[in-house]
Amino acid sequence: MRLSTVRTPSGATTAALHDGDVWRRLPAEDLSTLIGSRRLEAIGQLAGGPVPEATLALPLPHPGKVICCGLNYADHIVEMGRDLPLYPTLFAKYADTLIGPEEEIVLPHGLEADWEAELAVVVGETIRGVDVEQARAAIAGYTVANDISVRDWQRRTLQWFQGKAWERTTPVGPVVVTPDEVDPVAGLEVVCRVNGKERQRGNTETLVFDSATLLAYISTFTTLRAGDLVLTGTPGGVGMGMTPPTYLASGDHVETEILGIGTLNNVVRFVN
Amino acid sequence: MRLSTVRTPSGATTAALHDGDVWRRLPAEDLSTLIGSRRLEAIGQLAGGPVPEATLALPLPHPGKVICCGLNYADHIVEMGRDLPLYPTLFAKYADTLIGPEEEIVLPHGLEADWEAELAVVVGETIRGVDVEQARAAIAGYTVANDISVRDWQRRTLQWFQGKAWERTTPVGPVVVTPDEVDPVAGLEVVCRVNGKERQRGNTETLVFDSATLLAYISTFTTLRAGDLVLTGTPGGVGMGMTPPTYLASGDHVETEILGIGTLNNVVRFVN
Repeated sequence: MRLSTVRTPSGATTAALHDGDVWRRLPAEDLSTLIGSRRLEAIGQLAGGPVPEATLALPLPHPGKVICCGLNYADHIVEMGRDLPLYPTLFAKYADTLIGPEEEIVLPHGLEADWEAELAVVVGETIRGVDVEQARAAIAGYTVANDISVRDWQRRTLQWFQGKAWERTTPVGPVVVTPDEVDPVAGLEVVCRVNGKERQRGNTETLVFDSATLLAYISTFTTLRAGDLVLTGTPGGVGMGMTPPTYLASGDHVETEILGIGTLNNVVRFVN
Repeated sequence: MRLSTVRTPSGATTAALHDGDVWRRLPAEDLSTLIGSRRLEAIGQLAGGPVPEATLALPLPHPGKVICCGLNYADHIVEMGRDLPLYPTLFAKYADTLIGPEEEIVLPHGLEADWEAELAVVVGETIRGVDVEQARAAIAGYTVANDISVRDWQRRTLQWFQGKAWERTTPVGPVVVTPDEVDPVAGLEVVCRVNGKERQRGNTETLVFDSATLLAYISTFTTLRAGDLVLTGTPGGVGMGMTPPTYLASGDHVETEILGIGTLNNVVRFVN
């Protein structure tokens, strides 16, 4: 299944199931609400009539937790001459950092905004203290995210949070694809293009900590619930690593794609 | 005013105002809900009859954001031979880390659990992009917190989050005191005792970033809302800094006190 939240011409949203070339209505105002209240296996049967003139919105507008993993692509870590990590590097961001697949990334002028294309895992049920197999069974699906990072604020202190938690900077979507249709362990290409130029390309088969491992690890210390998001880290090719370091400018077009899932199209807008 | 959430013998909770030696009922099931829906200035007029046999619960059970500052006590930083920081070191924890003023701190056996007595600031209204004076006006009050930290997990990676986000480990309370009654800039003693032995004593007058400065800084990148909590950092004397490093054991009694606000009394319980 390919699920999302779509907007109707009236401005209302509805959870929806992609079926051929239409979006069929699901009985909730968004996918966060639907995943939180229904068994995933039952969702296919709930699809109603097509939503006319549907446009894609942020699929999961109110996750309780958005947890991100850094330093997780083996090829990039090895290429940087580092040892593979024993533990995932984790940090948190808020639901209000998230924007839809075609919304603007809005930031004040003068910040060093950088791209980080990522696979995001959508949690499907409540888990705490589970093993990897239980965690795998709790995955509702996968989507695309770009953990746009304000590098100058990220570097101000040892903790990355203040460079990662800027409101309305993290595009997510366009759809959540269920695990029967895509398998990141077998390999999904993760690509970021800025103004049409490819800047990042990695493959999820090289993740040090795969989706289920991350969920199980996180569940050791906190409860994950249906609709929560875990971002799995970004491959090499970020602007900070370029010579000279290169950051986003107002008007830049950021395309974030995972083959088999979909593409985010977001334009950067700097404001005073 | 001294505000909190109290539990009645039936198990229900209510927001309440301390008046002499009784708690008077306020019209919400907890202080998070009350602060989110009423102007603080109006709260005094809302107090109803006394709550019989009231016991103290977690005053703010569902903050949207709990943001913590590290490395913020000037005397401790100087004593460690470090320069004063230019920017506050910030990280996030979740509402589900919080426990009440007399609840158990529950953790698995074998973890290095350490104490961190802290002043916590309670946000009183929605703020984004405000200056320090506006931030000061948005402070609803102050309470006591202990940012119990799992040091071995905190040290696993560069990001502290996984040592700080363990569920049900952060005592908060016992009351929220409004700014007309206490002034951390003028100085409040912050004390932590373990099994009756004093381990930390600092004074909020030595905070590098005071409450209003922290709120203004955070509001640059994210919206703070009524009931959100900002923990302002801990003074010297944590177990990690002792020779040899000393951590909490099952059955240990942690008292966290801020003079003029109140005392948290929490017992550690390790489980399998």
